[in-house]
Amino acid sequence: MIIVQKYGGSSVADNDKLYKVAKKIQKTVNAGNNVVVVVSAQGKTTDLLMNMANSIDKKCSPREMDMLLATGEQQSIALLTMMLNHIGVPAISLTGEQAGIFTIGEHMNARIDEIRPFRIFNEIEKGKVVVVAGFQGIDEEDDVNTLGRGGSDTTAVALAYALSAERCDIYSDVDGVYTADPRIVKNAVKIENISYDTMLELASLGAKVLNNRAVELAKKYEVKLTSRGSFSEEEGTKIARNSLENASVTGFTADKTVAIVTVFNTNGGYDVFARLAEKGVQVDIVGQSIDLEEVTFTIKSSDIDKVKECIGNRYDMDILDNYGKVSVVGSGMINKTEMVKQIYEALYESKVPIKLISSSEIKFSVIVDEKYVDIALNAMHNKVFNN
Amino acid sequence: MIIVQKYGGSSVADNDKLYKVAKKIQKTVNAGNNVVVVVSAQGKTTDLLMNMANSIDKKCSPREMDMLLATGEQQSIALLTMMLNHIGVPAISLTGEQAGIFTIGEHMNARIDEIRPFRIFNEIEKGKVVVVAGFQGIDEEDDVNTLGRGGSDTTAVALAYALSAERCDIYSDVDGVYTADPRIVKNAVKIENISYDTMLELASLGAKVLNNRAVELAKKYEVKLTSRGSFSEEEGTKIARNSLENASVTGFTADKTVAIVTVFNTNGGYDVFARLAEKGVQVDIVGQSIDLEEVTFTIKSSDIDKVKECIGNRYDMDILDNYGKVSVVGSGMINKTEMVKQIYEALYESKVPIKLISSSEIKFSVIVDEKYVDIALNAMHNKVFNN
Repeated sequence: MIIVQKYGGSSVADNDKLYKVAKKIQKTVNAGNNVVVVVSAQGKTTDLLMNMANSIDKKCSPREMDMLLATGEQQSIALLTMMLNHIGVPAISLTGEQAGIFTIGEHMNARIDEIRPFRIFNEIEKGKVVVVAGFQGIDEEDDVNTLGRGGSDTTAVALAYALSAERCDIYSDVDGVYTADPRIVKNAVKIENISYDTMLELASLGAKVLNNRAVELAKKYEVKLTSRGSFSEEEGTKIARNSLENASVTGFTADKTVAIVTVFNTNGGYDVFARLAEKGVQVDIVGQSIDLEEVTFTIKSSDIDKVKECIGNRYDMDILDNYGKVSVVGSGMINKTEMVKQIYEALYESKVPIKLISSSEIKFSVIVDEKYVDIALNAMHNKVFNN
Repeated sequence: MIIVQKYGGSSVADNDKLYKVAKKIQKTVNAGNNVVVVVSAQGKTTDLLMNMANSIDKKCSPREMDMLLATGEQQSIALLTMMLNHIGVPAISLTGEQAGIFTIGEHMNARIDEIRPFRIFNEIEKGKVVVVAGFQGIDEEDDVNTLGRGGSDTTAVALAYALSAERCDIYSDVDGVYTADPRIVKNAVKIENISYDTMLELASLGAKVLNNRAVELAKKYEVKLTSRGSFSEEEGTKIARNSLENASVTGFTADKTVAIVTVFNTNGGYDVFARLAEKGVQVDIVGQSIDLEEVTFTIKSSDIDKVKECIGNRYDMDILDNYGKVSVVGSGMINKTEMVKQIYEALYESKVPIKLISSSEIKFSVIVDEKYVDIALNAMHNKVFNN
């Protein structure tokens, strides 16, 4: 039985952590499994390499960036393999290319096109743990490509599918998916089971446990995922198609990088959104006045300059920065009226003014001043879960 | 016309140096040449990576060491290419594998078996400077191999041969080969022309400008070499077959890691040398007593433990550590008697006791106490060159 395990950069940041991860892998091997491990670059290596490149030129060739960035993972696979060998676990490291990971698309944001895992099977056959470099593959030009940020999760899921693995365990600093960020909400509890869709909503709203692209891929090919703690012995969170066991409200999440834009005299707003789309600005919550002349929407704070560029010279507008979004997500929010009532109550009791509201099938979001985000998150979470 | 240029690790250690190297390459390109550049890992990167591995296990798998070490060069080719692009020189980086460098032999000490430079020619055709990772290649298992220390020089020479390059310029901190190490001998002067053989003797005696293996390869395929300064505009030293122009005495060199071993009752000494050869101990200068019962020879200090291991339990012996060797090298030392006279004079005048002497066709060496090495080097150099 093949199990794919993925360890993030902070889980392999130093020798002490490499040792603990190696021990965890050894345990899985000793339980009779064939283990394929995917690792990211150690700690802040990728950031460091990016800074080196940016110090030469802010607009480096993406091909050369990939050549540079790929070394981070190549180092960590070698080091983890050395540690596995050191504790007596036969292992071998493989780059993306050696693992047969073929990519298409653009540099620094490539997609996995195909995996030809001949060599992986070969090494498994020899009784070895195979340690594969995440985040990278090879294109038809024989050039190294990276998959973009969070790409190691995607590598792990794609490998799990290609190898018909029993499951794909994504290890990180956090030992699973919580009903809210436990660093902010003390009463947050770990979720046992969650559906792909709910997980996708949670992730896109700011939960950083699993990369969204990887969850989407897992959903498409029904790869069983778990989110686990690298340095914890506890059970993690299972992510699967089945949502029967899922609670109606699954989790709360917050995002502090929201800006609110109001554009006046838009003549229907179509032109405004066309311009935004062309510039690649993601519009989140949209509210329009009844006569459609005035339009209000939220964007990421980091997109403010782009908005000014593509709208500012044509329309009058206001931009309010330093807002945040608090959302509740659940695949089966049946009694939405009750939910809305509870949330209003919570925010009223904690004196948090609501700026905007948005609601969809599986989520409900409020926009509040950034300084109220943590208060709102706690109040809403604890009200809904009756803490 | 193709010119291969090789830049060592300290020549590309930071952005400032990368810029200067890029400018040097640009100048060669602007003069109408096609340039293929070979680079080593930046500064102390290779040592740093080795330390990381050793901190996990002193005896890491050589295959994994190669996986780790190869990242050093991969980083520097990307960064130098970014710098070249930044100053407007079209360039592309290639790993050893992409450059078509195929290796055989053992990991961490592989030999170049063949170069298939299709892609290099392809990129040159597109008008690009090709920046190739030194020190690495790919074996028939599709695994990364490194060529051992100094391997980037070998990569450069092998590429120059495979590409039928006009010449191979080896750039380093030093702007050529000197009659002695200028940091120790103030009066040392740069040598304009030197033969492969004399260069080999100088290098094996301790001059660190060019890797010996690379010089041997250059000799075999008659690749024209020059040793130049990365940050100097001056002409360097030409290394070629022709020795007509070479001076009779070419240079002085010193080595401070010598130990003297005397073994007693050896019964001819054959068994002693057989044992040393088996252990891979290189014996340098050998002196025997007339009855062949006692044998004295020099070894590298670092081999003392090996010698104790393979001889110590069988024979009585003395080991004297902390000695050094000073040598004079020249392809046409015709008047050796005159040379010997000058050297004795120099050492007598500077009160340096001689411990052992050795002489061959193109070199003459004396073993002295380590503390006298610099004094002896200066005295001999200045006496012979009449400074």
